[in-house]
Amino acid sequence: MRTIFSPDHALHHGRSELIDGQLQPCFEKPERAELVRARVEAVGLGPVEAPVEFGLEPIRRVHAPDYVAFLETAWDEWVKVHGNYDALPLVWPTPGLRRVLPDAIDGKLGYYSIDAGTPITGGTWRAIRAGANVALTGAAAIARGSERAIFSLCRPPGHHAGSNFFGGYCYFNNAAIAAQHLLDQGANRVAILDVDYHHGNGTQEIFYNRADVLVLNIHADPKQEYPYFLGHADEAGAGAGEGFNVNYPLPWGTAWPSWNEALEAACARLVAYRPNAVVVSLGVDTFAKDPISHFRLETDHFPLIGRRIARLDLPTHFVMEGGYAVEEIGVNAVGVLEGFEQG
Amino acid sequence: MRTIFSPDHALHHGRSELIDGQLQPCFEKPERAELVRARVEAVGLGPVEAPVEFGLEPIRRVHAPDYVAFLETAWDEWVKVHGNYDALPLVWPTPGLRRVLPDAIDGKLGYYSIDAGTPITGGTWRAIRAGANVALTGAAAIARGSERAIFSLCRPPGHHAGSNFFGGYCYFNNAAIAAQHLLDQGANRVAILDVDYHHGNGTQEIFYNRADVLVLNIHADPKQEYPYFLGHADEAGAGAGEGFNVNYPLPWGTAWPSWNEALEAACARLVAYRPNAVVVSLGVDTFAKDPISHFRLETDHFPLIGRRIARLDLPTHFVMEGGYAVEEIGVNAVGVLEGFEQG
Repeated sequence: MRTIFSPDHALHHGRSELIDGQLQPCFEKPERAELVRARVEAVGLGPVEAPVEFGLEPIRRVHAPDYVAFLETAWDEWVKVHGNYDALPLVWPTPGLRRVLPDAIDGKLGYYSIDAGTPITGGTWRAIRAGANVALTGAAAIARGSERAIFSLCRPPGHHAGSNFFGGYCYFNNAAIAAQHLLDQGANRVAILDVDYHHGNGTQEIFYNRADVLVLNIHADPKQEYPYFLGHADEAGAGAGEGFNVNYPLPWGTAWPSWNEALEAACARLVAYRPNAVVVSLGVDTFAKDPISHFRLETDHFPLIGRRIARLDLPTHFVMEGGYAVEEIGVNAVGVLEGFEQG
Repeated sequence: MRTIFSPDHALHHGRSELIDGQLQPCFEKPERAELVRARVEAVGLGPVEAPVEFGLEPIRRVHAPDYVAFLETAWDEWVKVHGNYDALPLVWPTPGLRRVLPDAIDGKLGYYSIDAGTPITGGTWRAIRAGANVALTGAAAIARGSERAIFSLCRPPGHHAGSNFFGGYCYFNNAAIAAQHLLDQGANRVAILDVDYHHGNGTQEIFYNRADVLVLNIHADPKQEYPYFLGHADEAGAGAGEGFNVNYPLPWGTAWPSWNEALEAACARLVAYRPNAVVVSLGVDTFAKDPISHFRLETDHFPLIGRRIARLDLPTHFVMEGGYAVEEIGVNAVGVLEGFEQG
């Protein structure tokens, strides 16, 4: 399996996020992607290749143009006011307030975001552009039909980013951009299978009213876990998209048997949808030792996930999402891919 | 003029707020109220008296019962999970997400708030209960008709707190609780005149659909300033409340002449409304040296505000809101009250 990777991901290196009531060093850090890449090479998964430049158009197919423009200039606007340290919002257009775009950068940051854990830094724009290109390069290969599966080693992750907001360490929704590109290259139906520990609220939001992308999410129950405000079982899509969003919220402490049951249920839905391809939002923060998560998957289980996905017998695009147990992130993420290759 | 004051305000002493992308020591701190109290005594404004206990019922007249119950237990829930340091939310139910109450305390904090600058501490509940009693004791005196004016030296402030959310250093909306109490004690119409630098978004939200409270706000334009997402000139009330909310957003750098013009306009609206009483949300962060604000009022201007309010010739209830230039907060806040007494 080919891996698409850009070293530009490392240009995004946030210093701190607000979590547990304190500003702490970011859990989402460059080592994550480097260790996955090292593991890809160590096990000889296949060639590691650079992405192709796709420009902003395919990004604007899922993100609002004003949001994309904001991300491009946010750092410069911030530095002018606050100086050279990470940008974080401080207030959000919650219920009771009104979502009108402010002029001030502090207000814009809140307007376009959902949380206080996702800093914009001097290198964020170049890193997320590279990440989108990594996703698009993978999607283009799948669209060409030249290979059965490909791995887009994106960083920062993407699935919490919506049509016009960032959050949860995510800015561009790489998996959504990839799925849209597959459609734009001729696919009729694409499925997104999100196996990250956290609900992919951005992916759900982007495709919620559409029938051409089936979004399947297996994740920690939002009653207990970030992002808290989306990912319930009764969120099934709306309008033309009704029936094309499926959530499998699971309680803290979920171990392999229950998690695997949800995966089986999701795969059954996926097969019935008869998509032309599947995009896998590949998070490995379901791992028992993940520092910010509460599921109990073990390293041995990740190849089983890959093997099950292989049995879908569909062109498969793995897109890297979360996973914060840095020591084991390579073994676990590449474990899924190895399982797929053996499946 | 009598001042109502409770030393219990000091039980609320947040350690840090997220502002300018960093966790910084809270600008809203106990010294603020102590210095205003010292100035009240230094100039011999009148007696300083303790509040009477009113219980939760008058608070629940403007705040949702579930929100009040949340504030009562939030600290205990937080400590169980995170230990003994200030509680801050990390994610909010912004557009694209769904406002369903989570079970986890981190989720609840986001559900009931608008920003990352308003910590809940071990002493918050007792302090805000005392603050509400300070406001209610003042309102009861005005309702009795026993005095022309009274000063409720509330802390923490209140005007950013809405029917079911905290934020902007505010938890209970003391001015709104006072206005509602005046109505409940027999007033037909009450006006709230908010002269704090920041828009009183909570007060606006609470009374937006009602005609029995005229809400007048003179404040920094939300395009430039916190809370960013409310306080525009076109927000005039809705339904039965249409025409009973008036905003005077002013640009950064506003000095006395323009500010005073807005005050005159607000006073004209107020007089035309013919209220039985006026509640003044008294913030003095319009002061030129305020560390987080951008207006240019000088110490000499504050007595002029009091004098103008006196000319309304209405029972007047001053309720303390913001003001973060700690050195001058006493002189400026009490300056308004002295101006009133001389007016």
